[in-house]
Amino acid sequence: MTTGVAIVSGGMDSVTMLHMLAAEGDNLVVVGFDYGQRHRKELRFAEQHAHALNGTFIKVPMAFMADLLHGSSLTSDNVDVPDGHYAAETMKATVVPNRNMIMLSVAAGIAVAEKAEYVATAVHAGDHFIYPDCRPEFIIMASETIAVATKGFSSWRSGPVVAPFVEKTKTDIVTIGHELGVDYSLTWTCYKGMALHCGSCGTCVERKEAFRNAEVHDPTEYYDASYLVQAYQ
Amino acid sequence: MTTGVAIVSGGMDSVTMLHMLAAEGDNLVVVGFDYGQRHRKELRFAEQHAHALNGTFIKVPMAFMADLLHGSSLTSDNVDVPDGHYAAETMKATVVPNRNMIMLSVAAGIAVAEKAEYVATAVHAGDHFIYPDCRPEFIIMASETIAVATKGFSSWRSGPVVAPFVEKTKTDIVTIGHELGVDYSLTWTCYKGMALHCGSCGTCVERKEAFRNAEVHDPTEYYDASYLVQAYQ
Repeated sequence: MTTGVAIVSGGMDSVTMLHMLAAEGDNLVVVGFDYGQRHRKELRFAEQHAHALNGTFIKVPMAFMADLLHGSSLTSDNVDVPDGHYAAETMKATVVPNRNMIMLSVAAGIAVAEKAEYVATAVHAGDHFIYPDCRPEFIIMASETIAVATKGFSSWRSGPVVAPFVEKTKTDIVTIGHELGVDYSLTWTCYKGMALHCGSCGTCVERKEAFRNAEVHDPTEYYDASYLVQAYQ
Repeated sequence: MTTGVAIVSGGMDSVTMLHMLAAEGDNLVVVGFDYGQRHRKELRFAEQHAHALNGTFIKVPMAFMADLLHGSSLTSDNVDVPDGHYAAETMKATVVPNRNMIMLSVAAGIAVAEKAEYVATAVHAGDHFIYPDCRPEFIIMASETIAVATKGFSSWRSGPVVAPFVEKTKTDIVTIGHELGVDYSLTWTCYKGMALHCGSCGTCVERKEAFRNAEVHDPTEYYDASYLVQAYQ
């Protein structure tokens, strides 16, 4: 049986990826990162899906990243999470410098220790505009660097890093997940990390769009007007 | 003034590098990693040199690596640190999987946050045989990957990663440090992390050889016979 390490935040993309890998019959070590994000409640969903799919869950305690890699609205109380469209220039405030390289590096170390054959990440095409560490060229280079760094000590099947959604849109992902029966009410997207999804930050806007475009029912409870309208229907 | 991030363990190589960079007039952010190593006492020396050179010191608390990246004698009480020559096959037991990629990734994130122009690592030629993540091809790939991952957000001078000793031997390093006036009694090498250097593990053997070959007085107190002989002289 193939063992894989999956980086799962508890958001729609990574939870869908996890179900996809599990559907292939892989034995999964699910790795979630506490990097001091406001919305660390997302990790509860990562753990829940990991256990539901008979995987193991590892929470990596790196909350110190919020202090050391300061200046991002994702981790700093002094910087507001911007509202508006996900692809807008203002979303650059949410960049945590080098976050994905850090996560891939740690996950690759865990993969070597666990004799896993790959590390999976759920970066997708919608991330490319804002986040340089979600682009295909980064994923390819990170994969090759990991292969060199672990030469002689690893069990990689082929390239260490697997990124099934790197050219998919979030709409594609919802479509795939819907077919797999993923319960999206058990995922978390909103960067603000309040009790409900805010409905107005970039990731919430993107989440709503994905459901709408995929023509899949959005089970999310939002704070904003569209939630109130839905609630009446 | 150029600001650089230097990864410093408190060993001879990284402390020498730190003095070299400081001699060039750079403003230094010194980053030391607690990755659960037995010999974490080395970090005290990293901090001491950082402050002596008017740098700031950041200790990165990643002791969880000992559990998650298990199986290395450097971090596990269940695996003995091997004695003998540093380059011997048995030293493979001291490999912490992907350690340098993890360290470089975190240091690069800190560098972006601090608007630093480079990240310096003190890997040297003697490390190449055992540790894949100390070889020149790894350092080059990691540097290029960091550049791609942080595109548009960084202040890199040229390639992000600087590795002045990548083709130097430990003997070269001691020679350079001796000229710079580095006090090697304030460095730590031994992987066993006892009160004194053990004198018999691979890194202690390498430390002694470096002083002998560089014809520089070795100020280290070892537990073994050579220490007892020295003490009588």
